[in-house]
Amino acid sequence: MTTSTALLLADLAGVAVFAASGASAAVAKRLDLFGVVFVGFVAALGGGIVRDLVIGEVPPLAFADWRYAATAAVIAAAIFWLHPQFARLRATVLVLDAAGLGLFTVTGTLKALDAQVPPVGAGLIGMITAIGGGLGRDLLTGEIPVVLRREIYAVAALAGAILVVLLNGLGHAGPIPLTAAAMLVFGVRLVALRRRWSAPVPPLRPPGTGAPGPPPE
Amino acid sequence: MTTSTALLLADLAGVAVFAASGASAAVAKRLDLFGVVFVGFVAALGGGIVRDLVIGEVPPLAFADWRYAATAAVIAAAIFWLHPQFARLRATVLVLDAAGLGLFTVTGTLKALDAQVPPVGAGLIGMITAIGGGLGRDLLTGEIPVVLRREIYAVAALAGAILVVLLNGLGHAGPIPLTAAAMLVFGVRLVALRRRWSAPVPPLRPPGTGAPGPPPE
Amino acid sequence: MTTSTALLLADLAGVAVFAASGASAAVAKRLDLFGVVFVGFVAALGGGIVRDLVIGEVPPLAFADWRYAATAAVIAAAIFWLHPQFARLRATVLVLDAAGLGLFTVTGTLKALDAQVPPVGAGLIGMITAIGGGLGRDLLTGEIPVVLRREIYAVAALAGAILVVLLNGLGHAGPIPLTAAAMLVFGVRLVALRRRWSAPVPPLRPPGTGAPGPPPE
Repeated sequence: MTTSTALLLADLAGVAVFAASGASAAVAKRLDLFGVVFVGFVAALGGGIVRDLVIGEVPPLAFADWRYAATAAVIAAAIFWLHPQFARLRATVLVLDAAGLGLFTVTGTLKALDAQVPPVGAGLIGMITAIGGGLGRDLLTGEIPVVLRREIYAVAALAGAILVVLLNGLGHAGPIPLTAAAMLVFGVRLVALRRRWSAPVPPLRPPGTGAPGPPPE
Repeated sequence: MTTSTALLLADLAGVAVFAASGASAAVAKRLDLFGVVFVGFVAALGGGIVRDLVIGEVPPLAFADWRYAATAAVIAAAIFWLHPQFARLRATVLVLDAAGLGLFTVTGTLKALDAQVPPVGAGLIGMITAIGGGLGRDLLTGEIPVVLRREIYAVAALAGAILVVLLNGLGHAGPIPLTAAAMLVFGVRLVALRRRWSAPVPPLRPPGTGAPGPPPE
Repeated sequence: MTTSTALLLADLAGVAVFAASGASAAVAKRLDLFGVVFVGFVAALGGGIVRDLVIGEVPPLAFADWRYAATAAVIAAAIFWLHPQFARLRATVLVLDAAGLGLFTVTGTLKALDAQVPPVGAGLIGMITAIGGGLGRDLLTGEIPVVLRREIYAVAALAGAILVVLLNGLGHAGPIPLTAAAMLVFGVRLVALRRRWSAPVPPLRPPGTGAPGPPPE
């Protein structure tokens, strides 16, 4: 198996787990079969589509290579039919999702650097590649995106993206350091899940005391 | 009337019916005049804007040809002032909307094929052209997109897009077969409306029995 | 201080006030630190990112120049920690936000004209540059965008954008007329705030009488 075949398979594995996550959320909202497949498609490929638009790679890979859309559609349709069994696999899916997060962070950051995006922008694009699909999934299903609310998720991606930018700047962006960066995201995410780590939230003040919170605008 | 004039008029008719659909949803949410026009604009032109960004045609037609924006704005403003009468035209609008769906599916798919997008991607882009405006309308008005929830709508567009891709691949993408593809989408959508066809939804399980559904994440 | 330095500083001031507005809305929704910074980033830079994608400038400035993202992140993080004090500054923020609106309208319209977008499209792009970030902020925090619901906000931006297009067409797009256009947006917005001007909303009919409103679709 060549490197590029390995990368493609890893990429499609990321697509598959994100499609499963999107389809699962859509089933929970009782969307119809088309809705489940569409939300799965957005969750799996939305981050990469935004990445490709931002770096000027048109048409985005999700439309240029049919294997991406086909993987997302098949997995999402399978979740539609099998979701009771899938629900029991939830712990497995969280682990796979963490792996997808690591992978998409690294490949997204690398693609942006290859497209001559400067370091800070490339790191942001890498993070958006990894979290964008989940954002789209939550917007389509009427939720405030979970990635903005709790748990270390985007922060793990951001840390990985910064590491990739640094490795690239130092001329060490070879397969082993990049794999280590993906593993870092994966590991931070898994530990955060197990220990229920969260980013800090604003302090609650008891109602009727002290200064009022900001108005909801 | 030349072919390109006919196509432009048909395209603007599609813009008009989708603008009416968006403005109507915005009036129901009691948005102000600007909000009604803006949601009408997004509903009419959002799908085409996404299509043009994805195939690298910048600026998108909605910004490059003033007649598109003007049509959407005039129709949406008219709905704002006339909406009680418009409500009584609801059946007519559903028929016109089905016609717009067929038209945008065919033109979107053809534009993607012309831009060298491979077949599967071109079909997806055609479908997104047709349903994208309605998605944007529903997101802006705080609804889970109706296209994901019930009725044969996107599926009709997808069937039409696949047919256009096949016709193009066989070298038969002339005016008559393409019109037939648009009529197919139109017809499937109308029959689905009349017979209340829906895509399947996940089975309901009674609360408290059997395996729990997937958590809402 | 050169003109381009002055423009950059003014642009970053606009980024800062929009980041503050986004972060404030995110704090009110009790998002976590990452969520507050991300919503601040979208509110500050979302309009400009859409503008750059639509005119084909990739990567968008928000990713190409690190100072934009850094400004948004620092301000949003500051709001996260300081939001009780920030809430008391609400009147100040509304004034700064009006200034940002004027600035982004003018720069957005100019950029679109420079990219050879025709007049109507350029005016629309200028308005979208100014209101796009606020739209993104509201979608991410689960609100129907406030810009669509009440108050003269987008309309002020649209008036300024039309003025910039006219000035440009007449060959008078120098610093002083453009500053006047920004001041126009700023002034209209401030007067609208003080006098509680709103765009018209659809008439309410008492329930149970007369023609029914349009169905919610």
